[in-house]
Amino acid sequence: MPETGWSLHPQLTKDTVPVCDLALSRLLAMNDGEFPWLILVPRRAGASDIIDLGDEQGHLMDELALVSLALKAETRCDKLNVGAIGNVVPQLHIHVVARHKNDPLWPKPVWGAAPRCASEPAALERFAAAIRRRVVPSL
Amino acid sequence: MPETGWSLHPQLTKDTVPVCDLALSRLLAMNDGEFPWLILVPRRAGASDIIDLGDEQGHLMDELALVSLALKAETRCDKLNVGAIGNVVPQLHIHVVARHKNDPLWPKPVWGAAPRCASEPAALERFAAAIRRRVVPSL
Repeated sequence: MPETGWSLHPQLTKDTVPVCDLALSRLLAMNDGEFPWLILVPRRAGASDIIDLGDEQGHLMDELALVSLALKAETRCDKLNVGAIGNVVPQLHIHVVARHKNDPLWPKPVWGAAPRCASEPAALERFAAAIRRRVVPSL
Repeated sequence: MPETGWSLHPQLTKDTVPVCDLALSRLLAMNDGEFPWLILVPRRAGASDIIDLGDEQGHLMDELALVSLALKAETRCDKLNVGAIGNVVPQLHIHVVARHKNDPLWPKPVWGAAPRCASEPAALERFAAAIRRRVVPSL
């Protein structure tokens, strides 16, 4: 699928701050005050399900692993929650959320839960910068 | 990680019927009366997060693609919902759920929703058999 014609869905632009662009995906940090929450968005126009990526699915898995390891190292979380849902925002995007056994929703999933509360802006930028340093150490 | 010492978590045994064993994962069909719902369980003792699979993450992606294509072809769904959560059942397992825009929960995720209703047993076996034929045509 082409990168030409791809642009980030307006809802994802509204809900996140950018972390960095990887080879396939744009990495975003969700503006959420309770959960360290990353989103990978493959820059491929028209992709909605993971299988739409065809031969590039392996690249997505590599980037998911890279990002998961960074998030786990940064947050020392008990569990990673990974989800590709897209019923509301059809543009393919993969959530990677750090969960702790003492967090406000444990053991429930974050998706479909009560409305999120926004992060303090400086804290969100610090989180995004910390992930960026782990994912792309040269930046 | 070793296959030796792996056995299916009792909660997954209780909630599903077996479809087939792929090279890495056991494929299960969830006993759910509303959603066509598959679960992939890599047969690796101690794995909880996808990153625990190390070099075998690519194999998991290949099996996820195979199963996703089979589920989409069988159900003609509008969207696949993929999730690796595991806050309650820590054994690594990946949900693959077929969603239709007119299903009872659309657009909400199935995880964390109201209690599921069981499938009619014969319907569940028919579904498992149909998926088995698509995933392993020689069976």
